[in-house]
Amino acid sequence: MVIVMKANAKENQILAMKKKLEELGFMVHVSKGESHCVLGLVGDTTTINESQIEAVECVDKVMRVQAPYKRGNRLFHPDDSIIKVDELTIGGKELAIIAGPCAVESEEQLIHIAKDVKRAGANFLRGGAYKPRTSPYSFQGMEEEGLKILLEAKKITGLPIVTEVMSVELVDKISQYADVLQIGARNMQNFDLLKEVGRCNKTILLKRGMSATIEELLMSAEYIMSEGNEKVVLCERGIRTFETFTRNTLDLSAIPVLKKLSHLPVIVDPSHAAGKWWLVEPLAKAAIAVGADGLEIEVHYDPANALSDGPQSLKPEKFEALMDSIRVIAKTQNKIV
Amino acid sequence: MVIVMKANAKENQILAMKKKLEELGFMVHVSKGESHCVLGLVGDTTTINESQIEAVECVDKVMRVQAPYKRGNRLFHPDDSIIKVDELTIGGKELAIIAGPCAVESEEQLIHIAKDVKRAGANFLRGGAYKPRTSPYSFQGMEEEGLKILLEAKKITGLPIVTEVMSVELVDKISQYADVLQIGARNMQNFDLLKEVGRCNKTILLKRGMSATIEELLMSAEYIMSEGNEKVVLCERGIRTFETFTRNTLDLSAIPVLKKLSHLPVIVDPSHAAGKWWLVEPLAKAAIAVGADGLEIEVHYDPANALSDGPQSLKPEKFEALMDSIRVIAKTQNKIV
Amino acid sequence: MVIVMKANAKENQILAMKKKLEELGFMVHVSKGESHCVLGLVGDTTTINESQIEAVECVDKVMRVQAPYKRGNRLFHPDDSIIKVDELTIGGKELAIIAGPCAVESEEQLIHIAKDVKRAGANFLRGGAYKPRTSPYSFQGMEEEGLKILLEAKKITGLPIVTEVMSVELVDKISQYADVLQIGARNMQNFDLLKEVGRCNKTILLKRGMSATIEELLMSAEYIMSEGNEKVVLCERGIRTFETFTRNTLDLSAIPVLKKLSHLPVIVDPSHAAGKWWLVEPLAKAAIAVGADGLEIEVHYDPANALSDGPQSLKPEKFEALMDSIRVIAKTQNKIV
Amino acid sequence: MVIVMKANAKENQILAMKKKLEELGFMVHVSKGESHCVLGLVGDTTTINESQIEAVECVDKVMRVQAPYKRGNRLFHPDDSIIKVDELTIGGKELAIIAGPCAVESEEQLIHIAKDVKRAGANFLRGGAYKPRTSPYSFQGMEEEGLKILLEAKKITGLPIVTEVMSVELVDKISQYADVLQIGARNMQNFDLLKEVGRCNKTILLKRGMSATIEELLMSAEYIMSEGNEKVVLCERGIRTFETFTRNTLDLSAIPVLKKLSHLPVIVDPSHAAGKWWLVEPLAKAAIAVGADGLEIEVHYDPANALSDGPQSLKPEKFEALMDSIRVIAKTQNKIV
Repeated sequence: MVIVMKANAKENQILAMKKKLEELGFMVHVSKGESHCVLGLVGDTTTINESQIEAVECVDKVMRVQAPYKRGNRLFHPDDSIIKVDELTIGGKELAIIAGPCAVESEEQLIHIAKDVKRAGANFLRGGAYKPRTSPYSFQGMEEEGLKILLEAKKITGLPIVTEVMSVELVDKISQYADVLQIGARNMQNFDLLKEVGRCNKTILLKRGMSATIEELLMSAEYIMSEGNEKVVLCERGIRTFETFTRNTLDLSAIPVLKKLSHLPVIVDPSHAAGKWWLVEPLAKAAIAVGADGLEIEVHYDPANALSDGPQSLKPEKFEALMDSIRVIAKTQNKIV
Repeated sequence: MVIVMKANAKENQILAMKKKLEELGFMVHVSKGESHCVLGLVGDTTTINESQIEAVECVDKVMRVQAPYKRGNRLFHPDDSIIKVDELTIGGKELAIIAGPCAVESEEQLIHIAKDVKRAGANFLRGGAYKPRTSPYSFQGMEEEGLKILLEAKKITGLPIVTEVMSVELVDKISQYADVLQIGARNMQNFDLLKEVGRCNKTILLKRGMSATIEELLMSAEYIMSEGNEKVVLCERGIRTFETFTRNTLDLSAIPVLKKLSHLPVIVDPSHAAGKWWLVEPLAKAAIAVGADGLEIEVHYDPANALSDGPQSLKPEKFEALMDSIRVIAKTQNKIV
Repeated sequence: MVIVMKANAKENQILAMKKKLEELGFMVHVSKGESHCVLGLVGDTTTINESQIEAVECVDKVMRVQAPYKRGNRLFHPDDSIIKVDELTIGGKELAIIAGPCAVESEEQLIHIAKDVKRAGANFLRGGAYKPRTSPYSFQGMEEEGLKILLEAKKITGLPIVTEVMSVELVDKISQYADVLQIGARNMQNFDLLKEVGRCNKTILLKRGMSATIEELLMSAEYIMSEGNEKVVLCERGIRTFETFTRNTLDLSAIPVLKKLSHLPVIVDPSHAAGKWWLVEPLAKAAIAVGADGLEIEVHYDPANALSDGPQSLKPEKFEALMDSIRVIAKTQNKIV
Repeated sequence: MVIVMKANAKENQILAMKKKLEELGFMVHVSKGESHCVLGLVGDTTTINESQIEAVECVDKVMRVQAPYKRGNRLFHPDDSIIKVDELTIGGKELAIIAGPCAVESEEQLIHIAKDVKRAGANFLRGGAYKPRTSPYSFQGMEEEGLKILLEAKKITGLPIVTEVMSVELVDKISQYADVLQIGARNMQNFDLLKEVGRCNKTILLKRGMSATIEELLMSAEYIMSEGNEKVVLCERGIRTFETFTRNTLDLSAIPVLKKLSHLPVIVDPSHAAGKWWLVEPLAKAAIAVGADGLEIEVHYDPANALSDGPQSLKPEKFEALMDSIRVIAKTQNKIV
């Protein structure tokens, strides 16, 4: 950590600051520049309260040298994390293809789609039982009934279940049904929820918040991991920008950046980012080409009657065509699916 | 609601669409343009599932004429809402000045600050007992102990208490201590939490999420109000933009916009937006000049040792000076404080 | 075009508005909703002055049905534009690979790099002779001397030249040397410059401004095309967002969106978007997988001594490896390089 | 400047880097942390080529201690700049109120408005003769004819003229008519134009680009000042964000930030930021309350027939009311108007 003192900081203020930092256990190098004096800290600064230092009147700014996360940091864990879910792995040679409807609407609907995506090559089944909706007047999900249908679909297809958990008190219940608990973009900084799923033994699919930086995503993963659960999969699903043609702007640069900074697997959800079904296939291909470990894709056989996210849902035949394209691109990345 | 059909939509597709909409209870006007056919819907479209229409293959786009919120909509409630809290009101002639430390750190700290802000002219006391922090290694709040200290401070100063509620299961407990429940920016779209506070009888201070549009803020207020609690105060606290000098960009235009679209009171939190104490006074003055109904300001007598948000906290003497400025600006707005 | 009247608009105001629009030559459909009256215009609204309508007091908002651009609009030109440059084409089966240094620094430097990128498979040579720099204290380019060196390099390698034109008075001079005139992101809305290059007969490579929407990019292309020059190639090079790890956020969704809205070729510049050389290869691969017609890539044999953009420049051997990857991905897209 | 070496940088790489920097004339402090080695540079780093250092393979990142601008930097010029224009000053006790139509449309129109704004209390007249428009099909300005009308209006009212210059070759001509040359937001990084106006002796009103950071605005001022013209007035006019209700998001925090970092005067243009006339008054008041040195406001007596920017233009009677409010707020800031 580097502390830049104000241009007018006095000698005794600099010394006082140095002493304060040494008392916190750091070695401090003082370097006097033309206009500013700079203090360099040596030691583990992960747990330092940066804002207490910035609040000292003679301090101009504080600049971090080390990343503020540890458990997800590739610096300390150079090898890729490969996470096991049932017989499958995420982050290894095989791509994770998580497909299914936005929301579970009925047993018939889910089983129908589950069979379709399985046949096309998906290896996980997604479906929302509890739905976060921007309008209180929209369909809010089938709740526990939906979870039971998901389990039924797993029995029939063998596909492990990925479903969203929206609040602390549902973690236990959903864990009884699902294989992978999804933390939605809106909950990426719901810290109580992160801690709670950090105490369960399920794999966590952590989606990037739509206004979260890459570093904040890694800090949220840190929350989960610091409670003991290291089975975290990161998911890029678009960030909010000034561009309105697409619902969000899919930040595909984030994939190689996350792979460099962290050892955790990274997948991409092109459906939510784009908000339009005809963008899903090109973005899915780009996601694999850029190095993602998998995809999460919304599929529905009747988008015009889907209770949510119809415009971005692929019909099963389109999903099948997409899987064919993905297989071709996967080979170029030395991946299989 | 206006539905634009694709340029190549066929006659029978247009008729089918028209029929579907009429079956939903709308009157439909068809208007054929040079390249596109447009359907105009007459009826209450608040509860329509827009995405089901967009998902129809021959539809190009859907454009809303009416706002999707009702209870917070000034169109249906032309008069300003004035909300009573104890002997005070928010949204009327008197400004609501909510001041106090970011976090409750000890009885001594809080009572000290409470007396200071009361003397300077604040009429509400803020203080966090449960703290959302981006790092799991940071101070997480004094929890229930903090709530007790807040109540103690209220007994001494008479100031009603404003404190944040971060999860559904804490709503009951915090309601026993606080007068105003704050929903933080990160929870603005935690819909379960919104519904829960919609069922309590406390005033809710709803902060705008840092990537939330004005319309989304009003939709979150709608969530609370649709459960029966109409005592909602909106709070602008900065949005995330590309500018990094300030922590967030305070969107002061949002104040007159919210006042035009909605009858709910609107206050401003300049401390979190700016992230720097020396920006708080000018932004607070601007907030009153632009038409806000109040302010939320962080105050601490020892920012360099504050457990959180030190850099943006005002010292009590600076807060007193700010109150003097605010009084002068308030007069120009025909407000008192 | 759809005009939404204010909720309180009076009958005579609506009629006056209707009459005004009819006098402008439009057919007008009036549709009265529950709270708002809506006027639908039939006719060519491309040249309507939208702001004059929005400025009428009883108007709430104006919503466009048709896109405001014509010449670049796929609706009116369904087939892909394929642009010829010397013996090459852009927008057809062959990918355009434009490579070279950020700036021409010397004859030796440019010829060295030109030979390297040619050998690796590039089919165009880039190099800046006039450089836009954020600091007045930075290297500003070799100017006409640089143009001469570019021409020399073309003689040796046969690669057509792509170079940036920054101002109206340089269009003629640069046209004498270059095959493709590049309009940089900062000049995307320099309308005088757009008109000027619209009057020359060179191919124009138009880069998206870093805060420009997709529609604004197409409107800038319209400026060029409306002067008679239809040889416009669009280039996505990253937009400005809150994420600071990458210099800009490469918006790869823009590629399929642009291909759907317009018939113009679209290429991608991953170097400027990322700002880091190790991101160039994965992003270049993703760009081809998402459907781009080509790439613009910065290459330098000694990045640590490059006069500009060193951190994002690939060394020739890295560029060669990238070309090998690109060839593999290109095949999956049924493209060649 | 602080250079953070990669975690795996070798001893000899660090020494080589240190030597290279010393040869550039800097003193270098080496500080070895737990995982990273950090080099601190002492000396004037304003003109250093940061990207050449970042491009060295063993370098992780470069962090600036000093701001990269000098002439506009308050550190080196602690007193406010007060700029004289005719008998008036900008940046002193008197507010600069620049008012007038977006575009000069006719002699009658301009003189009419000029008299109105003069009577209401404006002290500068604005009006565009050359107009940058996003559509090639929109009105492009009266050009030199418009300049002559502006001069005529000055003769009648005595108000100095503010008008936009869009390209290098017009600087001389416009200087013959105008008192203040405005650089529009889209040209904030048109570096040739900045250099050209840096060589004239007129006051320059430099508008912040809609995606420009505060630092980039100051670097553009530096461009002008480094050519010898120190009469630069900065203008905040809104930045592009995800919020679409307002045309741009007025960043009022930028005013106190600019006043702290720089000695240059700062004014605010609420008309372009908001895009709606009813937002102009509250934002203008907020701008003065936050510390701006003046305002630029669009006024038109017939917005519904204005050739551009009608929706954001105030009618003269509304402008008069606004001036009354501004006078009241100005007093609280110890300013006059």
